[in-house]
Amino acid sequence: MIKEVRCIVSIIMMALFVCVGFGCKNTSARKAEAVTAPKITKETIEKPSVTQAVQEPVVAQPKAEVKKEEAKQEAPVPEEQEERKESHAGCPSKQEEMASHPKDTRTIQEIISQITGEKIGPDNSGDLYHNGLTATYTGPKEVFPGEGKFGKLFSFLPIIRWYDPDHYYTPNMAVSGEFRHEECVMCHTVQTPGIVAQWKKSKHASTEKGVVGCDKCHGNNHQQLYMPSWRHCGECHPEQQSGHRDGKLGSHAYAFHVNVVETPWQIAKPAEEVTACATCHGIAENRCDGCHTRHDFSLAEARKPNNCGICHTGLDHYEYEMYRESYHGMIYESEQHTWDWTKPLKPANYKTPTCAFCHMKDGEHNAQKASTIYSHMGTSLVDRGAPKFKEERQNWINTCKGCHSPRFAADQLNAMDEAVKLSFTKWREAMKVVMDLYNDGMLDPMPNDLAPDYAGHYTFSLLGGEGRMYNVSDIERTSFEMLVYVTNAVYKAMAHGAMYGATYGKGAFLQDRWLVQVKSEASRLRRLRALEDKVGIKHKAYDFWKHGEYTDLLLGWRRKPGDVDKSACKHEGENCLVD
Amino acid sequence: MIKEVRCIVSIIMMALFVCVGFGCKNTSARKAEAVTAPKITKETIEKPSVTQAVQEPVVAQPKAEVKKEEAKQEAPVPEEQEERKESHAGCPSKQEEMASHPKDTRTIQEIISQITGEKIGPDNSGDLYHNGLTATYTGPKEVFPGEGKFGKLFSFLPIIRWYDPDHYYTPNMAVSGEFRHEECVMCHTVQTPGIVAQWKKSKHASTEKGVVGCDKCHGNNHQQLYMPSWRHCGECHPEQQSGHRDGKLGSHAYAFHVNVVETPWQIAKPAEEVTACATCHGIAENRCDGCHTRHDFSLAEARKPNNCGICHTGLDHYEYEMYRESYHGMIYESEQHTWDWTKPLKPANYKTPTCAFCHMKDGEHNAQKASTIYSHMGTSLVDRGAPKFKEERQNWINTCKGCHSPRFAADQLNAMDEAVKLSFTKWREAMKVVMDLYNDGMLDPMPNDLAPDYAGHYTFSLLGGEGRMYNVSDIERTSFEMLVYVTNAVYKAMAHGAMYGATYGKGAFLQDRWLVQVKSEASRLRRLRALEDKVGIKHKAYDFWKHGEYTDLLLGWRRKPGDVDKSACKHEGENCLVD
Amino acid sequence: MIKEVRCIVSIIMMALFVCVGFGCKNTSARKAEAVTAPKITKETIEKPSVTQAVQEPVVAQPKAEVKKEEAKQEAPVPEEQEERKESHAGCPSKQEEMASHPKDTRTIQEIISQITGEKIGPDNSGDLYHNGLTATYTGPKEVFPGEGKFGKLFSFLPIIRWYDPDHYYTPNMAVSGEFRHEECVMCHTVQTPGIVAQWKKSKHASTEKGVVGCDKCHGNNHQQLYMPSWRHCGECHPEQQSGHRDGKLGSHAYAFHVNVVETPWQIAKPAEEVTACATCHGIAENRCDGCHTRHDFSLAEARKPNNCGICHTGLDHYEYEMYRESYHGMIYESEQHTWDWTKPLKPANYKTPTCAFCHMKDGEHNAQKASTIYSHMGTSLVDRGAPKFKEERQNWINTCKGCHSPRFAADQLNAMDEAVKLSFTKWREAMKVVMDLYNDGMLDPMPNDLAPDYAGHYTFSLLGGEGRMYNVSDIERTSFEMLVYVTNAVYKAMAHGAMYGATYGKGAFLQDRWLVQVKSEASRLRRLRALEDKVGIKHKAYDFWKHGEYTDLLLGWRRKPGDVDKSACKHEGENCLVD
Repeated sequence: MIKEVRCIVSIIMMALFVCVGFGCKNTSARKAEAVTAPKITKETIEKPSVTQAVQEPVVAQPKAEVKKEEAKQEAPVPEEQEERKESHAGCPSKQEEMASHPKDTRTIQEIISQITGEKIGPDNSGDLYHNGLTATYTGPKEVFPGEGKFGKLFSFLPIIRWYDPDHYYTPNMAVSGEFRHEECVMCHTVQTPGIVAQWKKSKHASTEKGVVGCDKCHGNNHQQLYMPSWRHCGECHPEQQSGHRDGKLGSHAYAFHVNVVETPWQIAKPAEEVTACATCHGIAENRCDGCHTRHDFSLAEARKPNNCGICHTGLDHYEYEMYRESYHGMIYESEQHTWDWTKPLKPANYKTPTCAFCHMKDGEHNAQKASTIYSHMGTSLVDRGAPKFKEERQNWINTCKGCHSPRFAADQLNAMDEAVKLSFTKWREAMKVVMDLYNDGMLDPMPNDLAPDYAGHYTFSLLGGEGRMYNVSDIERTSFEMLVYVTNAVYKAMAHGAMYGATYGKGAFLQDRWLVQVKSEASRLRRLRALEDKVGIKHKAYDFWKHGEYTDLLLGWRRKPGDVDKSACKHEGENCLVD
Repeated sequence: MIKEVRCIVSIIMMALFVCVGFGCKNTSARKAEAVTAPKITKETIEKPSVTQAVQEPVVAQPKAEVKKEEAKQEAPVPEEQEERKESHAGCPSKQEEMASHPKDTRTIQEIISQITGEKIGPDNSGDLYHNGLTATYTGPKEVFPGEGKFGKLFSFLPIIRWYDPDHYYTPNMAVSGEFRHEECVMCHTVQTPGIVAQWKKSKHASTEKGVVGCDKCHGNNHQQLYMPSWRHCGECHPEQQSGHRDGKLGSHAYAFHVNVVETPWQIAKPAEEVTACATCHGIAENRCDGCHTRHDFSLAEARKPNNCGICHTGLDHYEYEMYRESYHGMIYESEQHTWDWTKPLKPANYKTPTCAFCHMKDGEHNAQKASTIYSHMGTSLVDRGAPKFKEERQNWINTCKGCHSPRFAADQLNAMDEAVKLSFTKWREAMKVVMDLYNDGMLDPMPNDLAPDYAGHYTFSLLGGEGRMYNVSDIERTSFEMLVYVTNAVYKAMAHGAMYGATYGKGAFLQDRWLVQVKSEASRLRRLRALEDKVGIKHKAYDFWKHGEYTDLLLGWRRKPGDVDKSACKHEGENCLVD
Repeated sequence: MIKEVRCIVSIIMMALFVCVGFGCKNTSARKAEAVTAPKITKETIEKPSVTQAVQEPVVAQPKAEVKKEEAKQEAPVPEEQEERKESHAGCPSKQEEMASHPKDTRTIQEIISQITGEKIGPDNSGDLYHNGLTATYTGPKEVFPGEGKFGKLFSFLPIIRWYDPDHYYTPNMAVSGEFRHEECVMCHTVQTPGIVAQWKKSKHASTEKGVVGCDKCHGNNHQQLYMPSWRHCGECHPEQQSGHRDGKLGSHAYAFHVNVVETPWQIAKPAEEVTACATCHGIAENRCDGCHTRHDFSLAEARKPNNCGICHTGLDHYEYEMYRESYHGMIYESEQHTWDWTKPLKPANYKTPTCAFCHMKDGEHNAQKASTIYSHMGTSLVDRGAPKFKEERQNWINTCKGCHSPRFAADQLNAMDEAVKLSFTKWREAMKVVMDLYNDGMLDPMPNDLAPDYAGHYTFSLLGGEGRMYNVSDIERTSFEMLVYVTNAVYKAMAHGAMYGATYGKGAFLQDRWLVQVKSEASRLRRLRALEDKVGIKHKAYDFWKHGEYTDLLLGWRRKPGDVDKSACKHEGENCLVD
């Protein structure tokens, strides 16, 4: 009896409750709105909300050798984020709760100092800060201006002078005078004995055409010494030089320009954390001693995979690891000390190939000649086995022919093609899940809730070539990695015969894991939203996504309005800088 | 005063609210039901819901050299999933909300194409698809039929002919004629100079009993050449052959059959992503040149750990990494170039042991002779120090005795035993958390919400030997890894003297991390469910767990009804195929 | 019309609903309370809730060679956890729901046994337990007592006798008699041929001052043999000995004492899983053959980086990996077999430096002489480029001068300084997010919800040097790793020239990922709490955080009350043991 009464009341209550929970508007219409609002279309991507760009950023134009103010930079003023507008017409009672935000306005330095008693102080004092929690960031004293299209926006640490010497190196020697090679050697045998010893073992110390001495590459005037780039080496090695320079996008010849002109990793982030980007990219394009290291500049050295491995390693370019995991690499490691590395890279001279053996056949310094098609380091999908690539495919098969039958080689390449194509099905399955979240406005945070990107916009990181794993939602980060690291690794593993890499560590099984992770996060986000909708909470991404000690250093917060102007762009979709 | 009124109203409201929230049934009874429903018991595991198996799958019998239709395979029809039945008797008002599902029915190709304007097209065209998002999957043109008990279900890429030549290799040479060894060499010095050079350095080029030439292993008729397996090598090396073939489950001799007959990794997944499985497993069982690589077939090579490392690496068999991290491995790397590898593997000849030194003493080719007990690659727990294994334990101590005292060796083995046993306490602690979730119906998704497994069933991945990390919930994946990768790594690290591996990277500390992760996910799932119960949302796992571009390729969706029939099985718990 | 009525009712309902949802107290006041309650202050950290320490723990004093009872240890009695007190004054209707806990009280062994039929049994029987799920933990038969300040609390496995022989080694040889060196060699050429062969190649076999034979290091009485430590080696190598012993905190000379006296990894965890800790730390402090391995004790060996790499690897000390990834390391690997390692470590003798080259210049055995400042393995922040470290900085520049210009070296060190300082901004940003959670009582679990730490307290793992990744919440674990593994890796990478390591794998990009992960988890925890507050659920951390088969083995549960007494401490903040 009581039960029945309860139920009758329930019926009434339920009806009311639904109204309270979802507001007074027609439910299905409201849902449609929520879906439509942030729906991504060709238009929204091509016209990224310019009005949302930073309004009053701090100007931070780097100048060469300019001392930065030691005073803490003023925190940039966050723009007013537009509230998601919702019609409450005719329903004044709708009072949606916001999820509770952190209330503590103290800095972390203050919080920790109050707990531990440690003093708060600048991080350049030489004092020791336990766990680094009460130190305050000061930034580098000296930065060099950036280069290229976005050069106005970013800067380099002084170390760039060694990696792009043509643009940044300036001599600073105290010793003056003009010196001949013999004199250099005499003094530097004491000053820098290592490089003298290396040079003495090199071919340069006794070429048929005479000694190539210190002055040949550095000049004679000790106060105007220079650091050689490919331009200087090319004087005696024109064939290698032209090979190096013949490469197109994706080759060594583009490694630095692409890096400094177009890559958000370099542009958008503080100079302090991207030194290593500039190092590999700078050396690869600008110098020859990345592969023939100074001062013996050895051919034998460059025939081995190790120097390639310094840059061609890890995450989005696993070439070195995958080679090392293969039979080729394992045999290299186990037996290379018994091989005569002065011999040309021919099948009869070496039991297994190395990087240069396949990619720089007969010393060809344009490694792209061995390629089929540039697929943005494996992040684009292309079937290299398609009929239109017959010739390039045959070239590869010929490369293997020193030791393998053409059918074996073709089967391996086919297996690579199929593995790559299959790997993209997982990535697309994940992306469907993520795009649905985006279109339903359920990412946490949505792009608008983050710091602006280096162009000052709030764009979805998984479209438009902006893929990143900083300043994004968790699911975007995982998805980005799934394409750039994992899908890519399958390609690199199969291309280099790394069985383990193709499945376990970085391959198919890791992709499975990532796919589960993407779905799992999507499920959480949807369940939370459904609950919030039901009880009338309007979740707004927490402010810690937009601001924080590091996040406030990102370029999007620091650029001037107008730095980037789409009307100045030559190519569609490009974000261009006003001169 | 107002406060008091509010409270009185609250009392009434609260009572009503509870009714609304939980429906009209007795709350505790309802909870008990929810708990009971999916409770796992011996019966539910042994009779996995056969009625839930796919009803109308697409038949995809692979045939050798059969061209697949290029038309996109019809999407398999998902079975109607039975709604969890709930009694609403006498309570018509109960209107449980479902959490909102994605509404966008467009494919990811359509979504991205509409945003970017990129064309949608097949992935075998040779066109470049940016990020691969608008490409559509075509699958391999040519597949070979599978082998063994489940051979009807799965298939291989053509590359399998090199890894199981006895079954799949067919000659296809254009050149015809019968050739003597000398003629082979003459022509192949030009065609494949690498392998001729290798062979010339080999013992085969000048044995006491005469030259072992090309024809000995490949035949004389150029249009009927064959690829040798252990059967051919055994003709001259009967002792090694019988050692190789004497191994039991877990040995090289079973590596391929177990792989193709019983392993869900191989069976359940598309051929395109498991080539690497077939490679290692195929070579290990079928060929001898996995360890003595062609064409010098060197003893010295097989004495070094590198070739072992191609397969015995990573995740569920970290032998190579753990050896390399140990003193033994570090000294190997640093000094091996100074050792005479033609000498037998005896303590006085080598400063440190290698894989073969301990596991293939005196050239014994049945590595299991050195074992105590096969523990499914370390995923089963057994105390190797128990009295019943006294003899095997003593064998190991004798192996160490070349350089170490018996007490030192015994202490090391004891430390391994204890570390392994302790590591299983973490795994069991995690599994208690996961099983409670399962029994409370709180996994997200539950097995029924996933694609069927290769047998057509919906089974809990952590029981019954089906452990997997694809097509499972996040917590099952983490748990699976905790046993197979991490618990296992502790064993492999301690067995091989890898101090770092036993604690940091892949050992005890990673286990701690995994345990925290399992609990953290369990807490989230329980909190979400409690909230949903409270507000009357009935969460049903989102459909993206069951279907997706990749998921629809899994074998469970593609098999014919009746392929697997438990009544045809010899062993209990086995899923057997109808002939 | 119906709509309008609905809305009017909604207004009333909404007001009531809010009251129901948040109870009858003033909402903002209640929120303030919730924030205040667990707020961390200097006082709360310095006086960690002593009353919360274990009241009736199981005493488990390890004794040397004591047989542990084979009976399963009684489960420790969990202390009554104080309920968070909340005033419900004047509001008897407030009935907050608790999130549902697991109901199944069976052990995991019972659950699995009922499903699979596998028998439950002890893990030391030698039986094979599939997946190890029905085995029960027995623990080691024999343990040795711990050492130092906390020696009463923890214990070692017997293997410790080899790593701290001065304290734990006891002779046990069956063979009796006094032997001269020649006799040792005669017999051991058969017994342990490896070490005899190694010794014969060593300098010890033919020094100018006569043979250093077996007896010199092990004694002559076969039943009283000893294992040598640095004390014995120092008799002939006093300079090296005093260098080794001169090191301060952070040096080899402190490696074991710090390990056994102060490190929670060793103290708080079961002996079975920390053998590897004791191995590296023990060898580093107590023995010389960690670097000059027995029995050739070679100088050349210790000049190579490999032996250093056994311990200086991984996670919180990535020195070896970072060196190997650099040009220095890559050239070492590719060419080291061509170098004469008997030569002193001078620039003209080696193309690239090794560990010892820079850190032990001229054979200095106190590696700290090459340091600027000890920063707790990189977990503290200090600017090594600050003016006060001018001299130490110059020393490093001089080290590089063999091959590099002083400006190049200074630029590299500057880039390291700046990268480190920047990396700490990410860590501090993350810590602000975590501390806010802590202060808002939103960690899941909060410290009180976990097992007590080794001191018997419930402290926040990210303060007070207790950082750990076991027995903590997920976000604490991630944060801990962010400092100790990732922030640290940036320093180690930049210090050793590892470009990849500084950005990709373990550097800046991984930090970004960790920061996203911390924020993502914080967002989830806040959204869940906001929902629970709204609907009147009082979440209490699930009991699985506090107890479990492994967790119950942690030292915090097993120590006696009074073992640790702050009043006995000399230094503030230390947890000291009562004698």
